[in-house]
Amino acid sequence: MTSPILADLVARLALAEAMGREAGKLALDYFKRRETLIIETKRDLQDVVSIADREVENLIRSRIHQAHPADSILGEEYGLEGGTSGFTWVVDPIDGTSPFVNGMPNWCVSIAVLHDGVPVIGVISAPCHDELYVAALGKGATLNGKALKLDSTRNIRNALTGIGANNHVSPAFVANMVQQILEAEGNFVRNGSGALMLAYVAAGRLVGYYEPYMHAWDCLAGYCLVKEAGGWYHPFPTEGERLTKGSVVLAAAPGAIDDLRRIAGV
Amino acid sequence: MTSPILADLVARLALAEAMGREAGKLALDYFKRRETLIIETKRDLQDVVSIADREVENLIRSRIHQAHPADSILGEEYGLEGGTSGFTWVVDPIDGTSPFVNGMPNWCVSIAVLHDGVPVIGVISAPCHDELYVAALGKGATLNGKALKLDSTRNIRNALTGIGANNHVSPAFVANMVQQILEAEGNFVRNGSGALMLAYVAAGRLVGYYEPYMHAWDCLAGYCLVKEAGGWYHPFPTEGERLTKGSVVLAAAPGAIDDLRRIAGV
Repeated sequence: MTSPILADLVARLALAEAMGREAGKLALDYFKRRETLIIETKRDLQDVVSIADREVENLIRSRIHQAHPADSILGEEYGLEGGTSGFTWVVDPIDGTSPFVNGMPNWCVSIAVLHDGVPVIGVISAPCHDELYVAALGKGATLNGKALKLDSTRNIRNALTGIGANNHVSPAFVANMVQQILEAEGNFVRNGSGALMLAYVAAGRLVGYYEPYMHAWDCLAGYCLVKEAGGWYHPFPTEGERLTKGSVVLAAAPGAIDDLRRIAGV
Repeated sequence: MTSPILADLVARLALAEAMGREAGKLALDYFKRRETLIIETKRDLQDVVSIADREVENLIRSRIHQAHPADSILGEEYGLEGGTSGFTWVVDPIDGTSPFVNGMPNWCVSIAVLHDGVPVIGVISAPCHDELYVAALGKGATLNGKALKLDSTRNIRNALTGIGANNHVSPAFVANMVQQILEAEGNFVRNGSGALMLAYVAAGRLVGYYEPYMHAWDCLAGYCLVKEAGGWYHPFPTEGERLTKGSVVLAAAPGAIDDLRRIAGV
């Protein structure tokens, strides 16, 4: 017998995957004509947004309203809409807006579903690379349909670590992160999209991802992917208003957990 | 009347472009079956190489031997072969081997030609993104045939800077680079391929690229591209044995030159 919660999850997983594809296609259309977009700045000149972010979020919200009108939605561009179903969608329409507006392919659409404070669905669509990452609690993680399973022999010394930081973090703090990873004989990449780097952790391309201050929409889909691929994540606070605030984000393959927890101090 | 030097350049440009496509295709074939490759380490666990690097360099060398047997060739994997024509090919068969073996798309084939100590041809092929960057001295730079021309309003505060560092550079030095860029209100990316990030400078996607210690095969093709797109580079020492040693690498769009020279101290 199928439990109601499981049936609810299956329906939302199918929607998340369909929206990943559809929203990814819309975002890619904007990307191809990015020279015509008006770029606005937010907190500073490095913090950018365009109509592409807003229209992709509008598309995703309208599909959720249609299928699950009682669900909550938290999106980067339009904030939190309350609901009564117990399910909350957490959406970053374009994660990596800076690479996007500058013409680099490292950006993605990130869609998560929270239930009982835990990310139970994670879908990340990377349209420039034609990659769709999909995970649901207890059902495993896939990349374009192929199962992802982390290799326990990988650690920060024989693999790469992803990092990120925004303007909430001081230059000296970022410098110290970099120094600690290198002194531990690790090496880092920063492609400009935290959500995509979390998907890369799930795919075994990076052994971990660390960002000192990130929002729920940047990390929850990636967290579900990493967990379902056999990795670990530092829980994101999801109670009430905390869900809309930033927090430290850390996810790792099994062999990198201890080193990265020491470096991140969590 | 066409000068002999110009005719020599035109012939080599056509070869460089053809090799960029052919070598890119071979490298991409290896990338798609990267799980079957044996990964060897060089200076440390983060410094990797595989048969893909060697076979791509062999292919490029054989094509040059065939067409221009009197040319010199310097390649990352097999070193310097002397010649008498006054032209030196400088080749990195796969720049970004670490992203390559880890399954990330940020790698490229980099092919330059030096004449009188100056890079006169630069071709960078990024097969995962189906992008071919081509430049020749005085003939401009193109990306998939479209002319590249840098925007002089871009600077380190309103655009992204690329960085890189290898195990010749101390963790504290890298940390200081990062801190200085952030304190100047810039932001950085590091996608794992210095040659590709230099091509991105030529394409206006990054406003500059800084790496404290890099080899000729990593930077000379990118340097030619940046110059021909309207940017600037810090000259790489090419006299005699110096060509095979590392040096500081810095390239920038017009509006970022002063800030990045101050940060790099050159």
